[in-house]
Amino acid sequence: MQALFFDNELVIKDIPVPEPGAGELLVKVKYSAICNTDLEIIKGYMGFTGVLGHEFVGEVVTKGHALSGKSVVGEINCSCRKCYLCLSGRPTHCTNRTVLGIAGHQGVFADYISLPANNLHFVPDSLEPEKAVFTEPLAAAVEIFEQVHMKPSQPVFIFGAGKLGLLVSMVARLQGFNYTTFDVLTEKTEFASALGINSRMAGDLKAEEKAEVCIDCTGNSEGINLALSHLWPRGTLVLKTTVAETAKPELNSIVINEFTILGSRCGVFKPALNLLERKLVDPLPLISGRFSFRDIISAFESAKKPSNHKIIIMHGA
Amino acid sequence: MQALFFDNELVIKDIPVPEPGAGELLVKVKYSAICNTDLEIIKGYMGFTGVLGHEFVGEVVTKGHALSGKSVVGEINCSCRKCYLCLSGRPTHCTNRTVLGIAGHQGVFADYISLPANNLHFVPDSLEPEKAVFTEPLAAAVEIFEQVHMKPSQPVFIFGAGKLGLLVSMVARLQGFNYTTFDVLTEKTEFASALGINSRMAGDLKAEEKAEVCIDCTGNSEGINLALSHLWPRGTLVLKTTVAETAKPELNSIVINEFTILGSRCGVFKPALNLLERKLVDPLPLISGRFSFRDIISAFESAKKPSNHKIIIMHGA
Repeated sequence: MQALFFDNELVIKDIPVPEPGAGELLVKVKYSAICNTDLEIIKGYMGFTGVLGHEFVGEVVTKGHALSGKSVVGEINCSCRKCYLCLSGRPTHCTNRTVLGIAGHQGVFADYISLPANNLHFVPDSLEPEKAVFTEPLAAAVEIFEQVHMKPSQPVFIFGAGKLGLLVSMVARLQGFNYTTFDVLTEKTEFASALGINSRMAGDLKAEEKAEVCIDCTGNSEGINLALSHLWPRGTLVLKTTVAETAKPELNSIVINEFTILGSRCGVFKPALNLLERKLVDPLPLISGRFSFRDIISAFESAKKPSNHKIIIMHGA
Repeated sequence: MQALFFDNELVIKDIPVPEPGAGELLVKVKYSAICNTDLEIIKGYMGFTGVLGHEFVGEVVTKGHALSGKSVVGEINCSCRKCYLCLSGRPTHCTNRTVLGIAGHQGVFADYISLPANNLHFVPDSLEPEKAVFTEPLAAAVEIFEQVHMKPSQPVFIFGAGKLGLLVSMVARLQGFNYTTFDVLTEKTEFASALGINSRMAGDLKAEEKAEVCIDCTGNSEGINLALSHLWPRGTLVLKTTVAETAKPELNSIVINEFTILGSRCGVFKPALNLLERKLVDPLPLISGRFSFRDIISAFESAKKPSNHKIIIMHGA
């Protein structure tokens, strides 16, 4: 089968179709999407070599399972279900985990993938595949709300109006609180505003404007330090992005203001699927381009452009 | 009156007795103690100029108040009780606060101080003044338990067996959980062990040994990064110390492991006084030296020695 292989450079290769292990199902990939994590990986993050990609919609081709022939999305962490972390309710942190297209597990930029049946979620016909491909990043946005009790009465600031920042904003908008999404680029705040997101230029923030929860979707030191300077004492700063070049915040302000800094990674799929199925979140405006799989290397070039949001790959097209 | 004044160097000066403002009481200082924060301030932290010191036991000399003639300890944050932070239950973070001997308020290394009556707590005769002088640092240790729900079944690691680390350990020992206190210096772990604290050398930590809560009382990058590497995913690292030279941890591991990093500063006095009055915490072994106020500059030299713990100043002696 055809697959996009990364080993210091991206190249389309012919590799064997994966053989499903115990409890795994073979899935034919229909749509996939490029995530910032993919872009970080090709800059060197994680030291990854292999087939990239973890956002997808596909069809189960293994026979004899309740999901056979069905459209599915899949959680990216493959857990052992036996270790202390699995047994204490943290399967996404499983000591023995592999991660689809990120660590030890062939990714979705290929004709087929193999995933544990436990990871797969049925996608009903009523949910368009181009929306369903957003389940994974939307779940990552919803994870914040799983971790932090954000109260409807609280001011919430979101820093960064890129793909993830916009998805977080779309979920935040569903709550009663007074949220604002900030970016340093006019085109980003204008794009967010056009989507109905309450958006402002970061430079217009006055010193006295503060929030109880700040969510950093910038992943850079400037964004993180800006967020910290607009957080009320005892407030929470959520760190949402991993980056190849590590940002390092000042610690003294964390201690003096008794801030909580909370790392946030993957989320569970079901609440994100609920938001998409109920049409409470419409991610389609975030699609900046569609490429056939044979043009995936051009798709990566397109995804790197800061003005672009989500790039969709159409497999078999 | 005599006071220890800091303006790039420490000098004993004659300054006026403070005039109590509205709601304040004049207190004659009987005992005070040197905190690591004092040592950081004279290294340049906070850019402080004035009379240092915030740990004390004294006697209220203002007449006509319920506390007149009584022995007292005092909370160090003087709050406006009117701002958003005061009114939302965060008076120690009051926007308009002054902090005893740290910011905008004359400290306790003097014959007299003036503090709001609301800040003062009665010290009964049954509690020795040399124990009561530990109320402030013990309250800072108790603050961790106010902020984090540490479950009795959880492993807890404490990094740093200095003054604060030992007080935190003494409180941790009162819980059912399996706590361990680590230090890089043999004399520190041996001293802790002699106090009945479960203590080990940091270098003996095996990679697979992890805790759900790590408490950093080292304030340096090595300590913080060691703590992070022994924290279970979704665990909490409590940062307990402010330092002049700022430590900067790697952020990627915070995001990937969904760690919580929690800053922790001053605590409320009542639970700390309870622990001392009930003889559940005995801080007396932490006293490494006693100096008369006239010898306070020598006392600072003594406090700087890493092998020393708490240095007590006897006023009027």
